[in-house]
Amino acid sequence: MPESTPPSSPTSLLLDAAQGPLHPAARETLLAGLDAGWADPRRLYAPARRSRALLDQAREIIAHGLGVRPNELSFHASGADALQTGLTGLLHARRRRGRTLAASAVEHSVVLTHGRARAAQDPADALAVVPVDEFGRVDLTEWDAAVAGDGVAVAALQHANGEVGTVQPLEEGYARAQQSGVPLLCDAQASLGRIAAPSAADVIAGSAASFGGPPIGLLVVREGTRFALPGRPLEAEHGRSAADPWVPLVLAAAEAWRQVEAVREEEAAAAFALIERLRDALSDIDGLAVAGHPTERLPHVLTASALYVDGETVVHELSRHGIAVASGSACTASTLEPSHVLAAMGALSHGNIRITLPLEAVSPDREQACAALPEVLEEVVTRARSQVWGGQSESAGRAGGAGVDSRGTLCPQPVIDIARWWRANPDATEVTLLADDEAARVDVPAWCRMTGRPLREVRELADGGTAYVIGSGAEATSQRP
Amino acid sequence: MPESTPPSSPTSLLLDAAQGPLHPAARETLLAGLDAGWADPRRLYAPARRSRALLDQAREIIAHGLGVRPNELSFHASGADALQTGLTGLLHARRRRGRTLAASAVEHSVVLTHGRARAAQDPADALAVVPVDEFGRVDLTEWDAAVAGDGVAVAALQHANGEVGTVQPLEEGYARAQQSGVPLLCDAQASLGRIAAPSAADVIAGSAASFGGPPIGLLVVREGTRFALPGRPLEAEHGRSAADPWVPLVLAAAEAWRQVEAVREEEAAAAFALIERLRDALSDIDGLAVAGHPTERLPHVLTASALYVDGETVVHELSRHGIAVASGSACTASTLEPSHVLAAMGALSHGNIRITLPLEAVSPDREQACAALPEVLEEVVTRARSQVWGGQSESAGRAGGAGVDSRGTLCPQPVIDIARWWRANPDATEVTLLADDEAARVDVPAWCRMTGRPLREVRELADGGTAYVIGSGAEATSQRP
Repeated sequence: MPESTPPSSPTSLLLDAAQGPLHPAARETLLAGLDAGWADPRRLYAPARRSRALLDQAREIIAHGLGVRPNELSFHASGADALQTGLTGLLHARRRRGRTLAASAVEHSVVLTHGRARAAQDPADALAVVPVDEFGRVDLTEWDAAVAGDGVAVAALQHANGEVGTVQPLEEGYARAQQSGVPLLCDAQASLGRIAAPSAADVIAGSAASFGGPPIGLLVVREGTRFALPGRPLEAEHGRSAADPWVPLVLAAAEAWRQVEAVREEEAAAAFALIERLRDALSDIDGLAVAGHPTERLPHVLTASALYVDGETVVHELSRHGIAVASGSACTASTLEPSHVLAAMGALSHGNIRITLPLEAVSPDREQACAALPEVLEEVVTRARSQVWGGQSESAGRAGGAGVDSRGTLCPQPVIDIARWWRANPDATEVTLLADDEAARVDVPAWCRMTGRPLREVRELADGGTAYVIGSGAEATSQRP
Repeated sequence: MPESTPPSSPTSLLLDAAQGPLHPAARETLLAGLDAGWADPRRLYAPARRSRALLDQAREIIAHGLGVRPNELSFHASGADALQTGLTGLLHARRRRGRTLAASAVEHSVVLTHGRARAAQDPADALAVVPVDEFGRVDLTEWDAAVAGDGVAVAALQHANGEVGTVQPLEEGYARAQQSGVPLLCDAQASLGRIAAPSAADVIAGSAASFGGPPIGLLVVREGTRFALPGRPLEAEHGRSAADPWVPLVLAAAEAWRQVEAVREEEAAAAFALIERLRDALSDIDGLAVAGHPTERLPHVLTASALYVDGETVVHELSRHGIAVASGSACTASTLEPSHVLAAMGALSHGNIRITLPLEAVSPDREQACAALPEVLEEVVTRARSQVWGGQSESAGRAGGAGVDSRGTLCPQPVIDIARWWRANPDATEVTLLADDEAARVDVPAWCRMTGRPLREVRELADGGTAYVIGSGAEATSQRP
């Protein structure tokens, strides 16, 4: 270890297992694999042949569990790498049939940013984003129209969303893609090992991290799927990777899979119930909104957003209480970047916390963590809000006759400004808020909905920013600060 | 572990550490890292902040050792991935200045196959291959001309060759690239931790596997280098990777680096001497040629080729004697593919074995392995040859008045055929060999050189294949079967 390791942190109650500790059995297997599987499986001497045999067995275990053949499954550097490879291979193979990528609005950032980047580079390429409902489920009528459109090369629909937990109607989505002759790419990074593996897709990408393995990527390309990567021929993993996986990591992934698959249904039922209780408890907290579908969801994922506070503060304060949660987008680099998933759902994006319940085998105290969270969170949010309301912030909106000007500030400031204005003007009937933070487009409507105020008009300003005309609401009392 | 692990192999004397077991200290650090560095370093809670601090420290350790700044160093899935990323980023950033990649003929297959693939796809792209001498060192006059050519975007010159060990004249090569304003990419996958790190390059790619770490990739992009990757913006590792590295692997790599760097000079001196003794001993074996520069070489790498036998047989037989060596190309998927490096040097490519001496800390019995190899190898090669010469193989060349027709056979068969013909016709003065295996273009001239026979003419045949006109040689006795 590097010598000046920081002092060890207080024991954490872990509620963020998007990348958690290894499953204990996977950890043991990784150690054994360092001794038994260190050799390059392409070599011809005895330890290398042993590595090859172990790699083949591990591939069979996971492929069997996914209901596919070993030669359909490849290992990759990361889940994001597997997803990128799957997307690139489908788009390239289909490039003469079409240049449009149809994708739900809540796909992983790999899919959406790749889709936008290629469309920006070449006008012949296009990205058709299919909207989702308030729970994050894709609109099947819109999906149908999008995949049936001219020149659609590939359709991307995730198995379940890693941020809000919502499970997509994959079978219906796949049936419609098949009717249109469009291959479907399914991102299963959040779901593998947690619910039954997806079968309704041509290409499936995942990560062993979702089932307690190391964060290596898995890619399934079903037989008969047209798939071709551009550029130089790749020599590893059925021509899908530049390098062989490191065998010890694959062995650990296979062992995690075995362990998790053996108890998946009980594990999922227990996690579902824990998250259900937590959803109920968090929904009771003033000014806190739980996002995602209440029942058509991953058993272990929950996202909630708190009005008037920022996610970073909440995460830091929870950490001081020994509780570890995530915040912001599940799949972009910046932890603090507003989530495109919440935006697509029209859900409040500031003050966000995200829970990915660890497997019980990984974190036996997860029930304790779930039990502790609501009270601590309420306290943390309340204290953070009291600081917000306690004094006039310098960055507060400039109130004037015309309303509130929050331009130049970032969320949640515009929402704080407008809430403060209403507190100072309880008898007003209407106010206009000016804001230019992109996140306000989501957060101002979400705030209006949460506080029962009508959003009467949204108008773009000639000199930049947006005007939001907000009325007073009959039921606008309970959520007020 | 998967349950039906094959029975454990006999103890191996390991002479192939291109990917070997972890350095013991790196193994311990990996274990510690599973506990201390499992968390996603982007999160904000305490274990994640600890991961971030550990990752930052590890990056500083390796960057400091390489003589670069931490923000110049990124971690990648594999050495090949780092090299591909380095190459792609340079080519893309320079695409308006030039479209030609100038590369030595012995570069890693990632460089050469990428260069060929892009040239095949777009006629505006080109690959200028710079020849090497018989030791595998780049010809500096040709290098100079190549990098000074019109439209050269990037020059690629490796630090040292992983297959034959030859160290390139990197400083001279870099000086000439700089004079021409062309950025230089240096593949240091074989050399990092074994000799002083390269400094004469704009971009350096390597792998922690060369110094006893896990096989993760390292990429240095020096400040001021124009570097841009095409496609979607990448979020990790200074915008050079789609995903963060797994922190436990990086910690293990940094610890391996610390350990190896602390003893590098003694370790290298000991390895150099062991390999020197081995070069001498193997050179004494009949019909065995040692390739690569005798002194301007990596301390720990040796390649030799044995006439009339195939590499696979030799590797298998050595493995039965408990000795593990590699064969064939160091950097392409197929272990049995003839090496483009040996071909570029004009060295015999069949019957090849390759030794990458493990670090003493990894394999304390390496001296024993080196001592055991020559006698066992001689025995293995002699037995394999006796099988070759024992009976008329069905695939033997058809001898006729015009000579020997070995078309339709693969190396080493054409060389076996011609040797057999000379044995049957000891008083002949000339013979014509017909062969159509690509490897024969290297192996037939190499055989002529090794057996002291003049190669009088090489002629392409109208109906496919090549005719080699070979004379008898005065000194052609000692190496004959």
